[in-house]
Amino acid sequence: MDYNHKALVLHKKFRGKIAIKAKVSAKTKSDLSAIYTPGVGTVSLAIAKNETKSRELTNRANQVAIVSDGTAVLGLGNIGPLAAMPVMEGKSVIFKEFADIDAFPLCITAADSEEIIKFCKQIAPSFGGINLEDISAPNCFAILERLEAELDIPVFHDDQDGTAIAVLAGLINACRVSGRVLKELKIVISGAGAAGIAIARLLIAFGAKNLVLLDSKGVIDKRRKDLNKYKQEIIKKLNINDCKDKENCLTQADAYIGVSCRGQLTASMIKKMQPRPIIFALANPIPEIMPESAFKAGAGIVATGRSDYPNQINNALVFPGIFRGLLDGKINKITEKMKVGAAIALAYCVKKPQKTKLLPNITDKKVVKILAKTISAKHF
Amino acid sequence: MDYNHKALVLHKKFRGKIAIKAKVSAKTKSDLSAIYTPGVGTVSLAIAKNETKSRELTNRANQVAIVSDGTAVLGLGNIGPLAAMPVMEGKSVIFKEFADIDAFPLCITAADSEEIIKFCKQIAPSFGGINLEDISAPNCFAILERLEAELDIPVFHDDQDGTAIAVLAGLINACRVSGRVLKELKIVISGAGAAGIAIARLLIAFGAKNLVLLDSKGVIDKRRKDLNKYKQEIIKKLNINDCKDKENCLTQADAYIGVSCRGQLTASMIKKMQPRPIIFALANPIPEIMPESAFKAGAGIVATGRSDYPNQINNALVFPGIFRGLLDGKINKITEKMKVGAAIALAYCVKKPQKTKLLPNITDKKVVKILAKTISAKHF
Repeated sequence: MDYNHKALVLHKKFRGKIAIKAKVSAKTKSDLSAIYTPGVGTVSLAIAKNETKSRELTNRANQVAIVSDGTAVLGLGNIGPLAAMPVMEGKSVIFKEFADIDAFPLCITAADSEEIIKFCKQIAPSFGGINLEDISAPNCFAILERLEAELDIPVFHDDQDGTAIAVLAGLINACRVSGRVLKELKIVISGAGAAGIAIARLLIAFGAKNLVLLDSKGVIDKRRKDLNKYKQEIIKKLNINDCKDKENCLTQADAYIGVSCRGQLTASMIKKMQPRPIIFALANPIPEIMPESAFKAGAGIVATGRSDYPNQINNALVFPGIFRGLLDGKINKITEKMKVGAAIALAYCVKKPQKTKLLPNITDKKVVKILAKTISAKHF
Repeated sequence: MDYNHKALVLHKKFRGKIAIKAKVSAKTKSDLSAIYTPGVGTVSLAIAKNETKSRELTNRANQVAIVSDGTAVLGLGNIGPLAAMPVMEGKSVIFKEFADIDAFPLCITAADSEEIIKFCKQIAPSFGGINLEDISAPNCFAILERLEAELDIPVFHDDQDGTAIAVLAGLINACRVSGRVLKELKIVISGAGAAGIAIARLLIAFGAKNLVLLDSKGVIDKRRKDLNKYKQEIIKKLNINDCKDKENCLTQADAYIGVSCRGQLTASMIKKMQPRPIIFALANPIPEIMPESAFKAGAGIVATGRSDYPNQINNALVFPGIFRGLLDGKINKITEKMKVGAAIALAYCVKKPQKTKLLPNITDKKVVKILAKTISAKHF
């Protein structure tokens, strides 16, 4: 509650959180002749002749668009582009502070996925990358797929990719702490929206085999006739033959990852799980179960999305470093392998993970450097 | 030539000219809780409840989009959005330096006017105003008209409005200097693109009656069957019954305003004009006639678009102050009366105009203050 008041006061005082800064002087007529007419014409012609020069002669190489239609903002839902702006300005500040990236928030009116796709293609000449944000599922899947195929700058949907990388990193370290092998874990993911689907995809890419996804109607399996194409695609890769229902799945599970607004995990459910299970209760701001209750019910390791408990699984650990690496490496597409690599690198930022220290501190600036190097090294 | 080299070196050194600046601290976990989750949710909800709060709680109220499709950049023509970027970054720097406005350049790919209109409507939730730039005629007229009708934030096309205001201000002071009355002047405008049409419209709004427009095919009059709708509209308001052809028009004229890339004014033409005519040779970078030659042929007053001669007629005198006034006054539409008022205010920034000092110096910061007050006072 204190944060809410502090946030309102601060936003009012500064009238938002970002501004433009000139990198050059514009005080004299001579300055203006170099940064604007007539001198600037030469710079424009140099780019017209050789388009790759736009990355050397303008700020494009360090510029990222944060694009949102405001349909799925935090836990607040479809609050629209005007109300989404404070969140996107917050991301912009984090981009700047942690990775020295100039990320500009574009909260837009868009009637459908096609309009968002078209918009992102229109702005591509002005940016070195696009960070999609808080766009509702399942639209966000089609938008990301199309843009990855049709644009020559990298596109990252933080609610999918960022969350998945942070969760995989957390899970890797939960295994290191508890002496388990991630590939052998039986994992239940509660929530099959942007985050749930992306987490499942990345865990599979890492090698996890025993995954079950739950949505509001129960287990996602072949018997279901109401699945969208993204859910249908993901179950083809899952090994869930022996899972009858939600309770049965949980009984077998070593790990639970909650990423649904409406999901809930009770103490009695945790008691039925395998011994000392890993519980990632990531619903925001109210987790599927509070850490105290989870431990009381027998959880071995607990993580949430909250900053006031240990083990915050937070995208802010991921997106600044990923984009720093993409821009530095002039990479035009993010691959699944890069994401897995980033998760491993993020996990190993912590030399000796502990039950209460799965991931680095969000203010640890080393993280950006390590992720950026991992991505820009182009091993992938 | 020196400016060209200086410009290239400077753009390469700084990798463009703008960056994002955070107005708030993001160093500690506590900072992050106020500028981002969880605190930011409260701010978003406050805007969702009352949309006018976006102007108090985000940077929207000080944020302008500089939108260009790169089809008519400076004198360089259709060089595309990537190559247009240095020019738009230059405008952004001028906006910041002279008016403390955060103007972000969006150089976009757009197939036609509809796509530009759609784009501007999409970004409206993120900005307090839109500055259209370097979009070719006649598309720019339809785009501006539609956006003025359909958006609730002000839209300004600098190549139309900015140029017209600067020219009218210059002409007012040319009359003050030479003891003429603007409403009685016989004026020839050479060029009927974005600038020419807008200048004609604004001069008429001010009260000028004796205007002739020339395009590449000669005098624009009722006999012509090849006129686009904007040229047709403008001749309805012109008093050109006694003007037979280009030469005949010039012979009667007291003032010549050149705003065409291909226009040329010879010494012999000036000799045929009325005594000591006013010559605004604004083609960039090569004026329709060089000042030395114009004076030699009998010109009374000469202005150009160049910074290396006296009397530079420059949009940079106009757009920062106009937008500062629009944003400060929370004005959602620019009217013809505001533009006339801005031109008068700009002219009277110079207490005693002289033949070699028609307009204020471009680096004179008083100009922005006076224009901003004029616009935001809402007399209009």
